[in-house]
Order: sequence, then C-alpha cells, then structure tokens
Amino acid sequence: MVTAGTTEAEFPSIVGRFRTEVHWGDCDPAGIIFYPTYFRWFDAATWNFFSQVGYTVKRMRAEHLAMPLVTAQCDFKASPVHGDQCEVLSRVVRFGGKSFVLAHRVLREDGTLLAEGSETRVWARRAGPTAPLKGEQIGEDLKALFRAVG
Amino acid sequence: MVTAGTTEAEFPSIVGRFRTEVHWGDCDPAGIIFYPTYFRWFDAATWNFFSQVGYTVKRMRAEHLAMPLVTAQCDFKASPVHGDQCEVLSRVVRFGGKSFVLAHRVLREDGTLLAEGSETRVWARRAGPTAPLKGEQIGEDLKALFRAVG
Amino acid sequence: MVTAGTTEAEFPSIVGRFRTEVHWGDCDPAGIIFYPTYFRWFDAATWNFFSQVGYTVKRMRAEHLAMPLVTAQCDFKASPVHGDQCEVLSRVVRFGGKSFVLAHRVLREDGTLLAEGSETRVWARRAGPTAPLKGEQIGEDLKALFRAVG
Amino acid sequence: MVTAGTTEAEFPSIVGRFRTEVHWGDCDPAGIIFYPTYFRWFDAATWNFFSQVGYTVKRMRAEHLAMPLVTAQCDFKASPVHGDQCEVLSRVVRFGGKSFVLAHRVLREDGTLLAEGSETRVWARRAGPTAPLKGEQIGEDLKALFRAVG
Repeated sequence: MVTAGTTEAEFPSIVGRFRTEVHWGDCDPAGIIFYPTYFRWFDAATWNFFSQVGYTVKRMRAEHLAMPLVTAQCDFKASPVHGDQCEVLSRVVRFGGKSFVLAHRVLREDGTLLAEGSETRVWARRAGPTAPLKGEQIGEDLKALFRAVG
Repeated sequence: MVTAGTTEAEFPSIVGRFRTEVHWGDCDPAGIIFYPTYFRWFDAATWNFFSQVGYTVKRMRAEHLAMPLVTAQCDFKASPVHGDQCEVLSRVVRFGGKSFVLAHRVLREDGTLLAEGSETRVWARRAGPTAPLKGEQIGEDLKALFRAVG
Repeated sequence: MVTAGTTEAEFPSIVGRFRTEVHWGDCDPAGIIFYPTYFRWFDAATWNFFSQVGYTVKRMRAEHLAMPLVTAQCDFKASPVHGDQCEVLSRVVRFGGKSFVLAHRVLREDGTLLAEGSETRVWARRAGPTAPLKGEQIGEDLKALFRAVG
Repeated sequence: MVTAGTTEAEFPSIVGRFRTEVHWGDCDPAGIIFYPTYFRWFDAATWNFFSQVGYTVKRMRAEHLAMPLVTAQCDFKASPVHGDQCEVLSRVVRFGGKSFVLAHRVLREDGTLLAEGSETRVWARRAGPTAPLKGEQIGEDLKALFRAVG
C-alpha cells in the first residue's frame, strides 16, 4: 500500500500518478533540486489527479472551479539531481466540508523516497468569470470519484 | 547615453530602471544564472517601466490592458552568480501601429554588461473582463509618456 | 513584537527583512500569487538574513557552506495580486545541534498578513569544493549573531 | 519535413522530441503561458536531445561538459493555455568551431505551431570540477551523432 506520508489517511483514496523529471533549471548551485520545485510538482500533480477522475482542466475552467491553497508542507528525504526521473503519488487523505487534504509522495525511479508532503485546498467556484472564488460544499459525488473500491 | 542594445533605436526614449538580484534559485548547477531568469526580469522590468510613467498595474488591470509578446531575444555577455546585484535598463526603441519594441540592458552593480535583449509586444485590450485581448492603436499620448525631452 | 508564526519561538531572534513584489509571472490564471512563489521568497529571505549578520553569499561560497532543507511549510492567509509590494520578516526560532528553524511572515505593505511559514535547515559544509554537504555543529558564535539584545 | 524555424538550416539534423505540458503555474493572469516558460522548455529540450544521442546528463556531468548560452530568441505564434499538451521539436541547424545553433519549434497536440525560436550555445568543458567552463572545439564525432542519414 502507498501510505499517505506524514498525514494520517481518513479517506480510502485511489492513487494519482504524475511523472516528472528534474531539469537543469530546477537545480541550484549545490547541484540538487531547488526545493520550491517540489511544490510546483505538487500543484501540477493535483490538477493531473483531478483530471484523471473526470475534472479535466477544460471542465474546471468551464465550471469556474479552482482549488486555492490553505496550507502546504513538505519533508525532504533525499536530494535528486539533474536528469532524475520521478513520480508523484497523490491521494486525498481527508475530505472536509469545503476543503480537502492531499498527501503527495515523490519517488525516484529507483524507488528512493525523495519527499513527502501535503496540501490543504478549498473546493471553490466563482459565480461568474469575474466573481471572487468562494468555497463550495463538497458533494458525495465528488468524493466517490476518489474512493478506492474494495 | 544608454544604447538600445542589439535593436537600433528609432524612438528617443526615457530609461526605466528595475533593480533585481540573482537569487540562489535563479542559478543552475554550473553556479551561474539560469538563462530564462533574464526573460522573467525583462517582463517585470517592462511592467515596472509602464508603472513609472503612469500605467500602474492597478490601472492596466482596471482598463483591461495587457502587453502580449510577439518576439523576445537576448544576448548573454557575462554570467552573474548568486548574490549579484543587478539593474535592468529599459527603453522603448520603436512604436509601431499597435506594437512596440523594448530594449533591455542588464548591468551588474560593478558596471559589467551582463545581457542585452529586446521584446516586441502588442498594446492590447479586452472589450470586457472575459473578452479576448485585441491589439489597439497606440496613441500619441502613450508615446509622449516615454519620449525623452531635449 | 513580531511573533514567529505557527512555530513557537525558543530563541530570542532579531528580525530579518526582505522586500519583494508580486510580479506578473508569479501569478496564476486565477490572478493571484502561484503558491510556490512564497517558498522562493522564503529561500531568498533566508540567504538575505544570513547575509545581514555577516554570512554573505560570497563568504558562504568561499567557506563551502550551504543550508539544505529538512522541511518547509506555509499557511496561506490572503491572496496578493500582481503589483503588491511585500516584505518577508524572518526569525530563527530554534537552534538545534546541526539544524535550525526559521519562521517567516509575509506582509503586504498595507499591513495585511499574507502568509506565515517555516523552514527547517541544516547548517552544512563541504570538506572541499566537490565533497558532499555534511551537517556541522552550530557554534555559539553563529547563534550570537541572531540573538536579540535586551 | 520539419523546418528549422526562423534560422536557416545549414546542417542536416535529426529531430529531437520533448513532450511537455502547460501547467497552472506556467500561466499568467491573462490565462495564457508566461513567455519565459518557452525558454525553460528550450533548455530542457536541448539536454533531452543530447541525451538521446548518447550525451546523457550523467555523462555530461562526469565529463564536466556544459552548454552555456550565447544568445536565445523566440517568436510567439499562438498562446497555449493550462492543460495544453505540447511537443518541442529541436534540430541542430549549425555547427561552428566551438558553438552550435539549435532551432526549436513548439507544437500543440492539435498541430498548432505555438512558438519557434533558437539558441546559440558553446560546447564547453571544465578542466576539473571547479575549473571555469572553457569552449572546446566541436569534433566530427559529435556532429555525426546529429546528422540525418539521407
């Protein structure tokens, strides 16, 4: 089982997978990944995860949906270098009323755990294209899309 | 006189100044600036330049104005490292009907020329908050804001 | 008093100040700051803080010193937009044997608290230019540089 | 035939392919790609291209090789949005004594040409891990790796 990292899982989530790579420009003068890169990956992995269950970028845009952040956190376990192939494994570990928590684990292709972190986000919608984002109650239908069967 | 770099100046422009610094995360494993950083600086310097003559970010947003790119180019002359204090000097070197060309020179505080480049941008507006950006005729009043006196 | 954010302060630290600005390219399609930008700021603020007490970038490089991350975290309180002038206030809230914790608060110039977070870093040195970074005991002289007097 | 974009091809090059995607954080408040992103892609595409012909990142690092930039340029043809799947097609269009020119074309998966640009780089090596990068004569064996067989 893929564990949820530092955040205790309350919700039996499927796992999203997002492949990425450490580019030259993602590294710093120490020759290792510049740490904000992980958060860029977390964000991309989250959009990718939602896309996989049917909330594609196109649909999110058409329905004026977004997922603003409440908090984000990451523990750094090992330092990848330029050229390393990585994968971000994501799970929804908790659904609140209008917010949810994602746990992300970053693995190198040799299986090394590089980092694990989490994001708390709000499920938010605009009434119209220029209206402000407003948190929206998360329905059972949305939760069902992420529920692991069996 | 500050020359316009690789782009011949047709317009007698004032000079915008944008101070910046090479951060740890702007550098690559070779220990020097990762080159797309210069283009991030050019973009910020351009917004800053327009702000200085009265087109503040707030005003640009309120009037649904933006400056999409047609082309961008940079010659790299010397390689700054983490901690270097820099300044981007910007000039409008040409005004076309709906587009304009900016020349940027990046200097380190010791006077070393690090890079010089240019951007061609369109002066564009949306009819409303969600309408597409559309090129707009550049008026004499806008040009006057950038004209060097004397 | 500037409080240390979500991390309880054990160490009576001076406060580092790092001025920054939300650029066009730091924002996302929702028109607000893209959250990894805060971590880029935290990193730059930390280097700046150490520079202010005498550990300049040049000195850090000459002495083969770096500050790799153990963990980083941020709570997002309000969403700045393009053009907002900000300041990161940083404190060392804890010194361990070889590691230390920084608390960062990001304020907009109107006083609004935008975000508060923390970084745990290792005080690390290379035996030579290509040797691996190795955690080093933090001496009283280093701590003294950050201690608030009175 | 994939043409070399704005740069006239002198060298009959194979074509490197680099798949990428427009992420949420790659876009600006106008909802389209923030233009320095293209240069990040060009850089990653170049490393990927060299990797494909045998100069892997690992080998480049072991042999103290790098490819510092002389100039870079890009024409922007169409504006991709969040979620767009893209591919960068790269060719070596000229080999000089110690430098070479790459032409890059960025296509969206629907075939739309988004951007075309070029980079001029130096083939550079360090005498040792901390020695400065120095341009090196490009040999026929390197050129042969990129030559399309007719």
